[in-house]
Amino acid sequence: MTAAGAFGFEVEATSGRARAGRLRTPHGEVLTPCFMPVGTKGTVKAVLPPTLRAVGAQVVLANTYHLYLRPGVELVRAHGGLHHFMGWSGPILTDSGGFQVFSLSDTRIVGDDGVEFTSVYDGSRHLFTPLLAVAAQEALGADIVMCFDQCAPGTLSRAEIERAVARTSRWAAECRAAQTRDDQLLVGIVQGGADVELRRRSTAALLALDFEAYAIGGLSVGERGDEMLATVALMDELLPADRFRYFMGIGDPEGILEVIARGVDLFDCVLPTRLARTGSAFTSQGRLNLRNARYADDLGPLDPDCDCACCRGYTRAYLRHLVNQKEIAGMQLLSEHNLRVLVRLCERARVAIRAGAFDEFVDEVRARRTMADDERRTLP
Amino acid sequence: MTAAGAFGFEVEATSGRARAGRLRTPHGEVLTPCFMPVGTKGTVKAVLPPTLRAVGAQVVLANTYHLYLRPGVELVRAHGGLHHFMGWSGPILTDSGGFQVFSLSDTRIVGDDGVEFTSVYDGSRHLFTPLLAVAAQEALGADIVMCFDQCAPGTLSRAEIERAVARTSRWAAECRAAQTRDDQLLVGIVQGGADVELRRRSTAALLALDFEAYAIGGLSVGERGDEMLATVALMDELLPADRFRYFMGIGDPEGILEVIARGVDLFDCVLPTRLARTGSAFTSQGRLNLRNARYADDLGPLDPDCDCACCRGYTRAYLRHLVNQKEIAGMQLLSEHNLRVLVRLCERARVAIRAGAFDEFVDEVRARRTMADDERRTLP
Repeated sequence: MTAAGAFGFEVEATSGRARAGRLRTPHGEVLTPCFMPVGTKGTVKAVLPPTLRAVGAQVVLANTYHLYLRPGVELVRAHGGLHHFMGWSGPILTDSGGFQVFSLSDTRIVGDDGVEFTSVYDGSRHLFTPLLAVAAQEALGADIVMCFDQCAPGTLSRAEIERAVARTSRWAAECRAAQTRDDQLLVGIVQGGADVELRRRSTAALLALDFEAYAIGGLSVGERGDEMLATVALMDELLPADRFRYFMGIGDPEGILEVIARGVDLFDCVLPTRLARTGSAFTSQGRLNLRNARYADDLGPLDPDCDCACCRGYTRAYLRHLVNQKEIAGMQLLSEHNLRVLVRLCERARVAIRAGAFDEFVDEVRARRTMADDERRTLP
Repeated sequence: MTAAGAFGFEVEATSGRARAGRLRTPHGEVLTPCFMPVGTKGTVKAVLPPTLRAVGAQVVLANTYHLYLRPGVELVRAHGGLHHFMGWSGPILTDSGGFQVFSLSDTRIVGDDGVEFTSVYDGSRHLFTPLLAVAAQEALGADIVMCFDQCAPGTLSRAEIERAVARTSRWAAECRAAQTRDDQLLVGIVQGGADVELRRRSTAALLALDFEAYAIGGLSVGERGDEMLATVALMDELLPADRFRYFMGIGDPEGILEVIARGVDLFDCVLPTRLARTGSAFTSQGRLNLRNARYADDLGPLDPDCDCACCRGYTRAYLRHLVNQKEIAGMQLLSEHNLRVLVRLCERARVAIRAGAFDEFVDEVRARRTMADDERRTLP
């Protein structure tokens, strides 16, 4: 359905399995690998659009489930779409709402046609279907839109994952058929947990629909780390090399390097901004928790290797003061910093990939990470 | 004690009793009349320094009481002072802590030498004296510092106000004698409630100490509006025309025009940022509460007459969505807007004063304020 020329993706360079690419969208290019900040309700928490641009964010995610319920997609359409609504003129991706209706609702009823669920806002009942997910995303007007899928964690039984794969395949076809706008890139989502056969089956069904971009769903949702990585590596084998690939939901620096190394182009996560609001920061040396008393008199920058406004303008002692006093400025500055760390990690990864030296880059990054006490204590 | 040349104040123009002036400080000039945003704990809530500059803020207030208790003034001194600590390179004013120890502490004991009080942070006991207030402010390193005073609202008995005036006079002399830095402008604070004779007495005692700047204290703390305005008018008569004047604690547009009209140069208040965090905005038409359902579908700007980034980039409907969802972006944008409204009001007042047309300007501003329903409902 996509208009010729509205989108284009090319892999410009590879280093091992890692890819440096370029995705063209109606609102600008996305250079990959790329971390995408999450603006669930039409705003990245504590980070306004000028700051998103300052940290180098290229594309922002917004959430169909939440925007559908509040303020409603028609209001966004009346604004001329999300770009005008939220003041972000660059590319936007909307998820389909599938993840939320499966994970957030205690009272959901999953059928083969869709999911009935209760609104977290007012308890009202709603039915999400593939058609509704497409229509809602067309009203929201993002550049990149997602098929309605059933997210099935690898921790479920094989029968449950198999059923989710079947539904996801059927719903993908329904979404493909339902799409009426030709200026939105519809992404097919592969499910299958950590099961090789189910991943193959899900991928085959989606490939038959010939999507221009594919997402890897159902990972980072409770499965073991080695299963996750093995599954991403499998997806790298199964997906066509010339199609754009999006891993849904990874946002720690170590994990990002792992998925880049396995051929992923795009990824998102609430982690950097959520951590920031609790006083935690990514740094080149590891994770740092500003509530730690050791930073009370620390006049150094949050991360001496970072080029963000937070690290250039403020000390750890000041940031700790803001965090301890629950000042909004602390959330603003740490959110900006954490996003910059991930964006810059991707920028540097891209340079390394284009130089054919991604493995060396990963070694260099890891050597700097000293796994400070803060991180050991905050790791699960 | 002030070094010749570190400070200078001149009244450049008057219109009626209103003054347009220029205060020179070690960190830059302040053009008056001027609204000063409040950064109580070393940060203006939800507004980072680049945004303060963007709205045209010229000088920021920080609070000695809070910074003394958290994180402690020595940490700020170790940073090279508040400018480096909070990342604001323009002029800074610190209050003395007097207002807080009198108003915030339930368990304070006021003596002639100072005030013993309980920390709001950890219940520890502290004694604030004039010497300590000066020393703390010298450690904080603001450009403009305040004498330690006893704030006595006009609602107290005459005997209580009289005692507060006597203490304030004595403490002002102690502060004057205690000052060791020559790069801080020490401001004497006049008390006396709404009592003409006590105001005269307080002013005379301070004038005898020959301060270069005077603050009008003890107002906007519960007295009647007509008493407040009459007292400001009295202060205009009593204070020398060539000295800088600071009214402590006024931040609604109407009140600001009233004190400018009575010869005040500088004023501050938490109101614009506090209102913003509850979803209320100043506009040229009156106060607007974004929680009001009437704005749910309003695609217009918050204030069509405003030039701030919030009004240029977002709709009322979007801002209402942010406020209803308790998104930090809503607090950021409304805080920026409310500050801009007050700063711009002062900028325009200055132009009008220099043109000898302040009264006409006030008439014009008032004519635009239609006292919308929102405001009537939120007024006390």
